[in-house]
Amino acid sequence: MSARAGIVITGTEVLSGIIADRNGPWLSERLRELGVELAHILIVGDRREDMTAALRFLADERVALIVTSGGLGPTADDLTTEVVAEFAGRPMVLDEPLEQRIAAIVAPLAQRWPNLDRTAMAEGTRKQAHVPAGATVLEPVGTAPGVVVPPADGRDPARPTVVVLPGPPRELQPMWAAARATDAFRAAVAGATVYEQGILRLLGLPESEIAETLRVAERTGLDLAPLEITTCLRRGEIEIATLYEPGGAPAYEAFVEFVRARHGTQLFSQDGTTVDEQVAALLNGPPLRTVAVAESCTGGLLAGRLTERPGSSAYVAGGVVVYSNEAKQALAGVDPALIAQVGAVSAEVADALADGALVRFGADVGVGVTGIAGPGGGTPEKPVGRVHVAVAARDGSGVARGGGRVARRLDLPGGRADVRDRTTTVALHLLRRLLLGQLDEPA
Amino acid sequence: MSARAGIVITGTEVLSGIIADRNGPWLSERLRELGVELAHILIVGDRREDMTAALRFLADERVALIVTSGGLGPTADDLTTEVVAEFAGRPMVLDEPLEQRIAAIVAPLAQRWPNLDRTAMAEGTRKQAHVPAGATVLEPVGTAPGVVVPPADGRDPARPTVVVLPGPPRELQPMWAAARATDAFRAAVAGATVYEQGILRLLGLPESEIAETLRVAERTGLDLAPLEITTCLRRGEIEIATLYEPGGAPAYEAFVEFVRARHGTQLFSQDGTTVDEQVAALLNGPPLRTVAVAESCTGGLLAGRLTERPGSSAYVAGGVVVYSNEAKQALAGVDPALIAQVGAVSAEVADALADGALVRFGADVGVGVTGIAGPGGGTPEKPVGRVHVAVAARDGSGVARGGGRVARRLDLPGGRADVRDRTTTVALHLLRRLLLGQLDEPA
Repeated sequence: MSARAGIVITGTEVLSGIIADRNGPWLSERLRELGVELAHILIVGDRREDMTAALRFLADERVALIVTSGGLGPTADDLTTEVVAEFAGRPMVLDEPLEQRIAAIVAPLAQRWPNLDRTAMAEGTRKQAHVPAGATVLEPVGTAPGVVVPPADGRDPARPTVVVLPGPPRELQPMWAAARATDAFRAAVAGATVYEQGILRLLGLPESEIAETLRVAERTGLDLAPLEITTCLRRGEIEIATLYEPGGAPAYEAFVEFVRARHGTQLFSQDGTTVDEQVAALLNGPPLRTVAVAESCTGGLLAGRLTERPGSSAYVAGGVVVYSNEAKQALAGVDPALIAQVGAVSAEVADALADGALVRFGADVGVGVTGIAGPGGGTPEKPVGRVHVAVAARDGSGVARGGGRVARRLDLPGGRADVRDRTTTVALHLLRRLLLGQLDEPA
Repeated sequence: MSARAGIVITGTEVLSGIIADRNGPWLSERLRELGVELAHILIVGDRREDMTAALRFLADERVALIVTSGGLGPTADDLTTEVVAEFAGRPMVLDEPLEQRIAAIVAPLAQRWPNLDRTAMAEGTRKQAHVPAGATVLEPVGTAPGVVVPPADGRDPARPTVVVLPGPPRELQPMWAAARATDAFRAAVAGATVYEQGILRLLGLPESEIAETLRVAERTGLDLAPLEITTCLRRGEIEIATLYEPGGAPAYEAFVEFVRARHGTQLFSQDGTTVDEQVAALLNGPPLRTVAVAESCTGGLLAGRLTERPGSSAYVAGGVVVYSNEAKQALAGVDPALIAQVGAVSAEVADALADGALVRFGADVGVGVTGIAGPGGGTPEKPVGRVHVAVAARDGSGVARGGGRVARRLDLPGGRADVRDRTTTVALHLLRRLLLGQLDEPA
C-alpha cells in the first residue's frame, strides 16, 4: 500500500461520549476498498488548537489524505473548514453562487418553522458559503457544503490533501462519492494498491482457538505472509477478516481450506455474508417461507432484527412479545398447565411459543424465545442468562416431513443488553439450521 | 481544569470499522466526572509504530494521563502492554504470582473446550503475566490483567501516566474503578477541578434555533461565559449539555430559565432524564399502569426499546408485530373493512392498533404504529417516512375520564433505520404526553 490516510472526527458531543461516532468506521471501510491504508482515527472536540494538533500529527505521520467529519454547521463553534484552510495555507473566500444555492435549500425549512430568525439564518448561510481558496466544493446534501483541500501552491506537495465532510452520516455518505471523484482526491491516493478482502464467520468457538489455528497453520507450512489476518468477536460470533494483494489469492484459498477442515461445523460463512443475510435469502426462497416469532426476554428485538432489511415484510409474518403467562396463553396459545408444571423458562415453553407463533400467524416457521435477561429474576436452577430458543417448521412447509425442529438451551454471559442481543444471534443461527434442513433428532 | 487526558483505542478490528468502539465514549464520560479534560481519542491498529506514535502525540500535547483499551490478549498481535512499557521506559518482567492467578482463571475454560491446546494456553498465560517493572497490576476481570504505568524514575515527571485496560467493555469497566484507586492514577490527575454537568432535552426544534437562542441570550445580557454549552441532535431530540465549575451554578440556572421561557413546550427534560426513563417512571407509578403495543413498520423495535430497562416486565404487558392485513386483524383486531377503506397506513388504523393492543393484552395503555419505513412502498400520497402513531388509554385507567388519546402523523426524513428509530422516539413522547394527561382534544 503506498497511500496512507487519517480520519479526524470533530465534535465535542462525540469526544464527550454524548453521541456515538458512526463516520469513522464507515470511512475506514471505504478507504480500505480503495486500497488506502488507514493509520489513525482521531476524535477531537470543537477546539481550534486541538483540531490543528490532530491535522499536524497526521501530516507528521506522512499520510497522503485526511478525511474530516463534522463542524460544518452555521454556528460559531463549527470551525472545521476554517481550521483546515489555515492548515493548508489557503485563505477563506466567499463563494457567492454557493451562498445562493444554500439559501435556496434552507428557504423551505424557514417556511416550516415560521418563527425562525431570518437574519440569523442568512448569517449562517453566508458563513457556510466561505471556502478555502482553490478548494473543490462538494455540493450540500443537507445544508452544509464539503470541500476537498489540497496543500496550497508552494507548500510541500507531500503534505496531505484534506477532504472536509459534514457530520450527519446521511449527508457524509453521498458526499464521499463526490469527494472521491475530484482530481485532488485522485491525485492524493494515486498509486494505492487495491486490496482484496475475504471474511469468514464462525459460531461456537473461543477466540483463543482461532489464534491456535493460525499457529498450527504456520507450523504445518501454510504461507500466511501475504495475508493480513484480523480476528474479532462480534455479537457472539467470530469474524476473520483477511486483506491481501491480488497475488495473495492462492494463499488465501489455502487458508480458507485449512479453517474449513478444522472448524467445518462452526464455519457458517465463507463469503462474508452475515447470518442475517443468509436467513433472509433462505426465507426469500424460492420457495418463499414466512416466519413468525413469539419472544419473551428479547422483548421485540428478534422481530426488530428480522425486519431490519428492506423487503422483509415479504417473509416476516409478524411476532408477539409475551412477558406474562397470560399473554403467553392469550397471544401464543401456550397451555397454562404446562407453564405451571415446568416453568415459563423451559425448553417445553420455548417449543410451545414457536408452535404458537407459527399457528397464530399462519407462518411456515415459528421461533420461540424464553429466558432470564436479568439483572433480576435468576435462581440457582435458572440463573440470569439462561435462555431457551426453539425453531419449528409446520408440516408441509417443505423443511422436513412432519415439520422439523431445532432447539437449544443457552447460558449466556454478560449484562441484560448482552443477553438479549446474543439471544437474537443464536435464534437466527437456529433458524438458519432449520431452513437448511439441519434438524435435531426427534426426541 | 488542570489535568488533560487522552484515550488510545487499539485494535485493527476497531480501526477497520469491523467492530464499533464503545470504550472511548464510556471512558470519556468517566474522565469528565473526575474533572479531567479529554483532549483526544485516537484509534490505532495493532501496529507497534502507530501505537507508539499515538502515545508520543499525546505526550507532546502535554496530557497528564493516557488511557488505553485493547491489545491485552494472549496472542502475538496483542502488543499494548509491551509498547506502553517501552514508552514509559520500563522493562517487561514476569509476575509469577499473577501468572498463577491467570492460570487459575483459564483452567475452567479449558474444561469447557476439551480440545484446546494446553501448551498454547500456558504460553498465552505467561505472556499476559509480563508487566512493566514498577507498574501497578489491575486484577483481571476476564483473563487479561491491566496495568497503571507511571513514567520511569529519572524520566521527565511531566510525562503522562498510562492506564492500560482490556478491550471488552465488561472487563474494562470494573477495572477502571480499580485503576482510579491506584496512587499513580491519583497523582497524575491531582488538582483536577470537579465540574458539574447539566443536561436539557427538547423535542420538535431544529438545531439552528437553539444556536439562535444562545445568541439572543447573550444579546439579552445573560452571562454564558462560565458555561461550556454543547448542543447536539440525538435520535430526533436536541440535547443541550452544559459543563460548569461549581461557582457557575447561578449562571446555569439563569440559562435554564431562559430556555424554558423560549421553548417551554419543547423542553421535556431539565434534569437530564431521557424520555425512556420518564415513560418508565410514569408507567411504574404509583399507580402502576401497563402498556401494550401493536406495531407495523417499527417491527418490534418499540417493544424492544420499552423492555430495555431492568424491571420493565412489571409494566410492559406485551406487543404484537403485525405487518400483514391478516395479522392486523387476527392479532390486533383491526377491522379489514377499515383497512380497505382508508389504507393500512392511516390515522384510523393507528388508532385501531392502539385500541387492539390495549384490549388484547388487557393493558391500561395501548400504542399503535403504522407507516412506510422504506426504501420501497411509498406513493405520492403516502411517501416513505409517513408514519401514524396513536396512543390510547382505556376507560378507567386513570388517565382521563372515558380513556384519552394522543396521535400524530409524521413525515420522517432519512433511511429505513432512521425512520424506524425516530418513530420509536416519537411514540415514547406521545406515551409520555398521554400519561401526563396532555391529551388531544376529542375530534
